[in-house]
Amino acid sequence: MARWQPDAPGRLAAAALDLFEERGYENTTVIEIAERAGLTKSTFFRYFPDKREVLFGGGAMTGVLVEGIASAPPEAGPLEAVAGGLDALGRTFFTDDRRVFSGRREAVLNANTELREREALKRIGLTASMVEALNRRGAPDLTARVTATLGALAWEVAYDQWIGTDGGEGFGPLARQALAEVRAAAIHVTNLSERHT
Amino acid sequence: MARWQPDAPGRLAAAALDLFEERGYENTTVIEIAERAGLTKSTFFRYFPDKREVLFGGGAMTGVLVEGIASAPPEAGPLEAVAGGLDALGRTFFTDDRRVFSGRREAVLNANTELREREALKRIGLTASMVEALNRRGAPDLTARVTATLGALAWEVAYDQWIGTDGGEGFGPLARQALAEVRAAAIHVTNLSERHT
Repeated sequence: MARWQPDAPGRLAAAALDLFEERGYENTTVIEIAERAGLTKSTFFRYFPDKREVLFGGGAMTGVLVEGIASAPPEAGPLEAVAGGLDALGRTFFTDDRRVFSGRREAVLNANTELREREALKRIGLTASMVEALNRRGAPDLTARVTATLGALAWEVAYDQWIGTDGGEGFGPLARQALAEVRAAAIHVTNLSERHT
Repeated sequence: MARWQPDAPGRLAAAALDLFEERGYENTTVIEIAERAGLTKSTFFRYFPDKREVLFGGGAMTGVLVEGIASAPPEAGPLEAVAGGLDALGRTFFTDDRRVFSGRREAVLNANTELREREALKRIGLTASMVEALNRRGAPDLTARVTATLGALAWEVAYDQWIGTDGGEGFGPLARQALAEVRAAAIHVTNLSERHT
């Protein structure tokens, strides 16, 4: 029973997404997800603490993001370091073969408040991880928080573009482009406020 | 039974906070909250769709925030308009007599994942409302999103300071100060990225 199952989390996520689309998140049980994946309920709970978590990969993204920020060149500014983190996510998670799955997942998430709440908290956690990674590069606290906040916005912009394109640009280049646009908008916004206050 | 109850939502929130502190969020039922407030379960559900929502005021904050942004002078820049929105929140919700309650509420929220998830989604909703209010003042989409994102960060900074002070500064002045600091940090971050990319 407890033998190793190749890519059990991935099979569970795929089975869950199918079932959530077919009958809705509320009408699907963990047992049904496990059965559809050809696995047991106890295998499910070895990887995920609850039903919602099956669409969130169990937190693997944090390490890749943090490592991507840490490994940016020492002379890179904070936004450039965040670009390194988003690049790493693109290479590891937001790959071309995940684009269709990610779009379907997004639609399921948007249809369910519980899932959107979980996603909202994940996003806060990922932003906090960016802040810590930037702190370790020497960025003072508010500098790190502003950078992480702008980085999270660029991530959101790039992700929406990425799941909306058919075999177009990869996530990494889209994220760099979005970061440049967010940076330009931030310069514009801070200039406007100077003129009027 | 269905007669008007003076400040029923406020009494329910106060009763809920007491009970969550005494026995934990999970170990408290809606019936117990209603009883402690001297009200009925059906009165509870007239104001709140579920147990979590009792600590979130049923969405009244959005209107005040949006109206505060809309009523900023026409010549005000987007960050200044957001300052108007945060001022309005300070006058209406984050008043001196709410400071202790807000600090207790924050501690209860931080101790429970379900509540933190609800709060995270509320925050996304409030940020989206700021974006829409800024759009209506003529800010293009990414300008509005960057402004709202920086505004939400300043709100968070000011709120933490506000609940941490004893009868010190009001929320409005703290929010203006936080917005100025966030703006300065954004200028710093965007300059740094220019130097290195």
